Amino acid sequence: MDYRHQLLPREKVFRDPVHNYIAVSYQVILDLIDTKEFQRLRRVKQLGVTEEVFHGAEHSRFGHSLGVYEIARRICDNFEHDYPSQTPGDGLWDDHERLVTLCAALLHDIGHGAYSHTFEHIFHTDHEAITAQILTSPTTEVNAVLKRVSPEFPQQVASVIQHTYPNPQVVQIISSQLDADRMDYLLRDAYYTGADYGRFDLTRVLRVMRPYKDGIAFDIDGMHAVEDYILSRFQMYQQVYFHPVSRAMEVILDHLLLRAKDRYDNQPVREDGFRPLLLEPFFNHDWTLADYLKLDDGVLNTYFLHWADSDDAVLSDLANRFLNRRPFKSVEYTSETEDLLTILRAKIETAGYNVKYYTATNDSYDLPYNANSRQTRKPAAEIQLMKSDGSTIELSSLSPLVAAITGRELGDQRFFFPREMLTKDAENDLFSPIYIEFQNYIHNDQLIHPQGESHDN
Amino acid sequence: MDYRHQLLPREKVFRDPVHNYIAVSYQVILDLIDTKEFQRLRRVKQLGVTEEVFHGAEHSRFGHSLGVYEIARRICDNFEHDYPSQTPGDGLWDDHERLVTLCAALLHDIGHGAYSHTFEHIFHTDHEAITAQILTSPTTEVNAVLKRVSPEFPQQVASVIQHTYPNPQVVQIISSQLDADRMDYLLRDAYYTGADYGRFDLTRVLRVMRPYKDGIAFDIDGMHAVEDYILSRFQMYQQVYFHPVSRAMEVILDHLLLRAKDRYDNQPVREDGFRPLLLEPFFNHDWTLADYLKLDDGVLNTYFLHWADSDDAVLSDLANRFLNRRPFKSVEYTSETEDLLTILRAKIETAGYNVKYYTATNDSYDLPYNANSRQTRKPAAEIQLMKSDGSTIELSSLSPLVAAITGRELGDQRFFFPREMLTKDAENDLFSPIYIEFQNYIHNDQLIHPQGESHDN
Amino acid sequence: MDYRHQLLPREKVFRDPVHNYIAVSYQVILDLIDTKEFQRLRRVKQLGVTEEVFHGAEHSRFGHSLGVYEIARRICDNFEHDYPSQTPGDGLWDDHERLVTLCAALLHDIGHGAYSHTFEHIFHTDHEAITAQILTSPTTEVNAVLKRVSPEFPQQVASVIQHTYPNPQVVQIISSQLDADRMDYLLRDAYYTGADYGRFDLTRVLRVMRPYKDGIAFDIDGMHAVEDYILSRFQMYQQVYFHPVSRAMEVILDHLLLRAKDRYDNQPVREDGFRPLLLEPFFNHDWTLADYLKLDDGVLNTYFLHWADSDDAVLSDLANRFLNRRPFKSVEYTSETEDLLTILRAKIETAGYNVKYYTATNDSYDLPYNANSRQTRKPAAEIQLMKSDGSTIELSSLSPLVAAITGRELGDQRFFFPREMLTKDAENDLFSPIYIEFQNYIHNDQLIHPQGESHDN
Amino acid sequence: MDYRHQLLPREKVFRDPVHNYIAVSYQVILDLIDTKEFQRLRRVKQLGVTEEVFHGAEHSRFGHSLGVYEIARRICDNFEHDYPSQTPGDGLWDDHERLVTLCAALLHDIGHGAYSHTFEHIFHTDHEAITAQILTSPTTEVNAVLKRVSPEFPQQVASVIQHTYPNPQVVQIISSQLDADRMDYLLRDAYYTGADYGRFDLTRVLRVMRPYKDGIAFDIDGMHAVEDYILSRFQMYQQVYFHPVSRAMEVILDHLLLRAKDRYDNQPVREDGFRPLLLEPFFNHDWTLADYLKLDDGVLNTYFLHWADSDDAVLSDLANRFLNRRPFKSVEYTSETEDLLTILRAKIETAGYNVKYYTATNDSYDLPYNANSRQTRKPAAEIQLMKSDGSTIELSSLSPLVAAITGRELGDQRFFFPREMLTKDAENDLFSPIYIEFQNYIHNDQLIHPQGESHDN
Repeated sequence: MDYRHQLLPREKVFRDPVHNYIAVSYQVILDLIDTKEFQRLRRVKQLGVTEEVFHGAEHSRFGHSLGVYEIARRICDNFEHDYPSQTPGDGLWDDHERLVTLCAALLHDIGHGAYSHTFEHIFHTDHEAITAQILTSPTTEVNAVLKRVSPEFPQQVASVIQHTYPNPQVVQIISSQLDADRMDYLLRDAYYTGADYGRFDLTRVLRVMRPYKDGIAFDIDGMHAVEDYILSRFQMYQQVYFHPVSRAMEVILDHLLLRAKDRYDNQPVREDGFRPLLLEPFFNHDWTLADYLKLDDGVLNTYFLHWADSDDAVLSDLANRFLNRRPFKSVEYTSETEDLLTILRAKIETAGYNVKYYTATNDSYDLPYNANSRQTRKPAAEIQLMKSDGSTIELSSLSPLVAAITGRELGDQRFFFPREMLTKDAENDLFSPIYIEFQNYIHNDQLIHPQGESHDN
Repeated sequence: MDYRHQLLPREKVFRDPVHNYIAVSYQVILDLIDTKEFQRLRRVKQLGVTEEVFHGAEHSRFGHSLGVYEIARRICDNFEHDYPSQTPGDGLWDDHERLVTLCAALLHDIGHGAYSHTFEHIFHTDHEAITAQILTSPTTEVNAVLKRVSPEFPQQVASVIQHTYPNPQVVQIISSQLDADRMDYLLRDAYYTGADYGRFDLTRVLRVMRPYKDGIAFDIDGMHAVEDYILSRFQMYQQVYFHPVSRAMEVILDHLLLRAKDRYDNQPVREDGFRPLLLEPFFNHDWTLADYLKLDDGVLNTYFLHWADSDDAVLSDLANRFLNRRPFKSVEYTSETEDLLTILRAKIETAGYNVKYYTATNDSYDLPYNANSRQTRKPAAEIQLMKSDGSTIELSSLSPLVAAITGRELGDQRFFFPREMLTKDAENDLFSPIYIEFQNYIHNDQLIHPQGESHDN
Repeated sequence: MDYRHQLLPREKVFRDPVHNYIAVSYQVILDLIDTKEFQRLRRVKQLGVTEEVFHGAEHSRFGHSLGVYEIARRICDNFEHDYPSQTPGDGLWDDHERLVTLCAALLHDIGHGAYSHTFEHIFHTDHEAITAQILTSPTTEVNAVLKRVSPEFPQQVASVIQHTYPNPQVVQIISSQLDADRMDYLLRDAYYTGADYGRFDLTRVLRVMRPYKDGIAFDIDGMHAVEDYILSRFQMYQQVYFHPVSRAMEVILDHLLLRAKDRYDNQPVREDGFRPLLLEPFFNHDWTLADYLKLDDGVLNTYFLHWADSDDAVLSDLANRFLNRRPFKSVEYTSETEDLLTILRAKIETAGYNVKYYTATNDSYDLPYNANSRQTRKPAAEIQLMKSDGSTIELSSLSPLVAAITGRELGDQRFFFPREMLTKDAENDLFSPIYIEFQNYIHNDQLIHPQGESHDN
Repeated sequence: MDYRHQLLPREKVFRDPVHNYIAVSYQVILDLIDTKEFQRLRRVKQLGVTEEVFHGAEHSRFGHSLGVYEIARRICDNFEHDYPSQTPGDGLWDDHERLVTLCAALLHDIGHGAYSHTFEHIFHTDHEAITAQILTSPTTEVNAVLKRVSPEFPQQVASVIQHTYPNPQVVQIISSQLDADRMDYLLRDAYYTGADYGRFDLTRVLRVMRPYKDGIAFDIDGMHAVEDYILSRFQMYQQVYFHPVSRAMEVILDHLLLRAKDRYDNQPVREDGFRPLLLEPFFNHDWTLADYLKLDDGVLNTYFLHWADSDDAVLSDLANRFLNRRPFKSVEYTSETEDLLTILRAKIETAGYNVKYYTATNDSYDLPYNANSRQTRKPAAEIQLMKSDGSTIELSSLSPLVAAITGRELGDQRFFFPREMLTKDAENDLFSPIYIEFQNYIHNDQLIHPQGESHDN
């Protein structure tokens, strides 16, 4: 039989704690799941360092990818049942789009690597480009499976993920304000962190979702369910994805990789028998897709374990801080207090720390992190509600709650530094006076101009 | 202040998806959580290869250890509130035992390593002995924290875990048929796998739990809640812990490590720059506690990634099967059909497989796996129900359901072999006739004497 | 369009706490829900007096009836999708049976009245006969809707509920060991009582359910899910449906109605302006279907409120005990101690109580209660598991747990009496010595032969 | 022992689906639960007619009252543990306030009657005044129990509910923006309706709640949990409490009682043997507390059942509409379209309906309904967040989401009318032209000025 339409002898299900069951009936989908590139996702955590704050959140991108597939599958089922296209161009659902939709849903994150955003920051990789490469390169098992559908199928699936596929409905199922990706990660991250904020009524949202000529809209009757999803997402960002301690661990990770790279640039050969073989292509700026696909969380952590015993004191210290969870402390600052950072950095330097590796600033809206990157890489489609006469109205014009968080820059700017600067009872410590001066700049988790500050300068 | 009694300025909580919050008020407990040995548990999965079947079950021993602590804490709270000892020896709860109980609960699994049971099988390590060592060796951070309580405190905590502590109540909170360890792992594994079978009414069980002179008993009013716990545990073993595919992945892992060890014994030096440095002490039968504490799931997987490219075909093949989830197939056999295994092995050998590495038998009651070892390493205490007059009666004498599964050997014996032996449409395959003969021995997932079997011999 | 096939312009859903949403697409089903006979079910509680023990269980038969419909609907969907009949008699699912199945599911309980089993006990009504009457009598709105489908449709639906419909699959969806009725009430009663015991994996059970020539079977792969359902049901009976206090309230209700009837027989006319108009046809043994359909929980409770002020001391006292939740106490007895009941009754009589109205015995297996009646009114079909070759095997032969509770008489025999007999500190009470003697017969919730008993005789 | 401090021999628990268990340790509390006035709450539904839209919401005020007690109990436990008063006036928690707090929590709704707000609207009763009366009148069992604590205790408990008790912490636990009452009803109504919107993190909110000199504040760390509670409440009001169909049923109930009263005023004596004896004192404007306490949902429904057969066509029709769930239809109007209502009413009158009984307007912010009354009867306390230095800041100044819904009038104005006015296919109907004209005024659920409207006048 035509591979494209080949069904399994019996529908196969995966037990999933979020969706209960994930149902697969196409042979193509099962074959994709069985590829080594997809199985690799088991070894890449969905939320990176977030588990250092929410210890339950140890789930990988494997389950998330299955979940996105499952939501896309349910959307296709609903669309085919309720809105089947009768004639081309009628703005309804053409079920010939199902397989490309399901494959794109399943594979949308396949290019993600270990600690994805931080790694990209240091090594200038690009998980979206790599996703496309995995789909279209003849070296991968994924490509081999997709090609069996048709020669152009790999590129078609890639184009959905890259938002260039001609059918906007297919693209928006995978990438929009309210897409299968976001719906799954909110529910899944909420489930694994234990933070209920991410819950929303998936069944209801799927029920009011509908295709139309410009993509996907939502019945106006379902306005409150959609609003609740937006609020849940907002709350997850505020409380989970942008958690200050999680960002502090991210900073340490970033600086650890930076230090390793700086050091490798200066002294590539080690004498002690240890070489970070799998990272070397990246240190050397000369890596292939095969090199990339060998990396996962465990590989990086293994190198961190070695570095923790390094004779490079900074490398060793940062590796230990990362592995043993010793986050930096941080303080919020504003444009009024930003100038004080220079003073603080000077004190930290005086206390013996290299500020390149031991301080950082970041704000939670351009964090090198999965949360915000999600915001930027998606089409900026607004959510359209459809009235009974078929006209649409944008969500925030109806919902005061959504309006309240639309177009606002949320989050904060924080300055990160070693927790030792806050050591209180450092009586016998050489640097005790510096610590005390330092602490004068912090009040109620805020950077402040201390009283008598001028004397400090 | 006395470190033993030192409380945090404010109770600290960890968000936990199973228990909602885990509350820490002792400085000692927080310091133990912050040790590197305890943080290492984040990198060791609770259920090993089970995630290959239940993909949601990616949780580590870190969260489980916190969960056991939390349940123990609630038990202490209840006991102190409802059954405080008035005079020594009155069989009630002496709250001076609280800290040793909490520490033992928190640390009971700290000696577990990566893929614990399989690793022990190949390298003859012993996670229980290592747990004691971590507590009592002056080289660990855990020991340093415990010693601050008192010089003998490390050994006291160890003795609880080893069941030699004099107070049977403390021992049974940590280790008995219905202890904090089992209660947490059932709930937690059920939550992460998505298999509801493990749920039981924790609040109710804790409420009817009570100390008495011989340890822990349960109010007879709570019989049904206790019965439900026993049934839940039984169901989790049958459906999750002993899942045939999970055991098949365990077999591959076991044989992969065995092959690596065999090969290292023959040819320790590699030419390609890669050395499994962190495993070498174990290959050499000369390892220290420090060596052991460097191992985690990611380290082993990193070596597997290297071995997947090895020029040793068996090593490479097994590593790929493990990493990319290619489980062996298996068939159930009985004492009547056990003699057929010789024939099957011969056919597998003929088809080109080394049966040492490509076949295995195991039964689900002595599986080298966390499930069963749990059954054997615990004190075999029965569950006692207490009547209103203080007399006790053993659970299975009241519950026909518990009686039905008491003292029975449950589970099955299975023979594992490469899935290729079941290839159906191997028309052009050289070994096609062998496969067909092989398959004649299998019917309905059972090993059978095929019709015309004598001719096969 | 043909009414039988008429679909709603858009599928309508009912928010349901157990099934999330209940989906209706047929006009017939919506019209049935809108009938006055069906709406009446809102005023009849599902579990009668159970709410006196589990206060959350205040749900009515309305939600349960919708829930049974919803489960039946999902079964039909699965069957139509996975097992569509190709040729008549092939043992697969003929979707022409869908509407009769859904209607029978929705209406199976429509003949239930207020406090159904107790009411039947006193007034000799029969809710199953009344169900059939409501379907087939030209006086009802339900009949009018059903007749619009076809003249014989009302009788067809009734025959499904009466187990005489020719297609065994349809009958067993509604009535069998594992039918839509039982599945819904277990989940629903568990949800509303808060007793988790009733939970089981509905999705999984529905997934392994399949039609075959003799009715409904279950894939052998799903054995554990089916087993878990059986255990859940067993636990709900033991812990919820047969709760001794619930049975004690049932006894009071029974005796209250009995007293009212006895009194009406002797003195039908009241002088005070109050007449239980809606009950009078039942007192007079001359009632119609219309009379029956006017009764609901609120009507009976309203009469109880009046009787609570009656000048008949027994009637007034029993009404107050019922309305204000003053259950009788009870004690378990066995065949060895049954003879003591005569002595106890004598003491209760001496203490001033009419034993006809103030004592009772019942056992939890022939309790005049919804639990057991369910066991008896269903076809005694065993649960068949289907192997891959299509042969079947009965569940209890595979499951030791199910075998443990198969064919056993579970439950207990209890003797009920006024709680005043247990008054401890009745120093100034005339009957104090009697109470003390009475209490000598009770130890640990059991009836016993007291020491020195012979002297009491 | 002093009754005030008398504990039960063993803590008693009630299984509750929302809070799992409700724990009672004081004899006073158990005695209050056992009073006939408290047991009556089992017969008064929490949400009145809401169950006509959310069929699962059949729960009574009994469970809610226990739930409020339970939350108050947990608050007291937390306060006593974390913030015990050391010296009078230190703004911390004085545990001598516990019993009065618990009693007020348990009894705060005891004056509620059947269909409380509608009944009050017609008969000018006042459930808050009646609550006070039940506590302080020597005729009630509740008063008898409270008096055993001390002669002034009944009045003290009443003063908490009336917000005049001197300790603001006690008052605000019972009545404030974030009190035990609201927390329970949100969670409980969400549970029973199945609308998840009402969920929030109770454990977290209770954990950050703290006493201070002016009452109750919340740690600023818990801002997001408090915000989430406010959003949940907002969503429940929008989607459950103000549901248009629920309001439509409320309108029918209101008009049904109004018609009965009007009719009784004109013709008090009936010839057919039926008299609404328990309502007559209210028709006669001469009722006592004892009369009030006899009313419950079942009593009113019983009278509605009789009225459904009345020879008064309006009374009969409205009773049938109410019992058999035939809600009015409604349309939203604004100040621009309000003048059209006169036209619509005229058309409805022409079609044969008495507009006094067959039309209504209401807006969802002054609805005669439990939702809004809750808003108005509470102290308008803002929610104060406490910083680490003890200063406080009001919630909406920190949360853009809360600010978005603060001080806004939400909800809509609707005009209610018989659904028959929307009959489409009334070909043979005498009034068909009127219906068609009527429908011209409605577009997209909004009242509009139709094109060509002037011709219609």
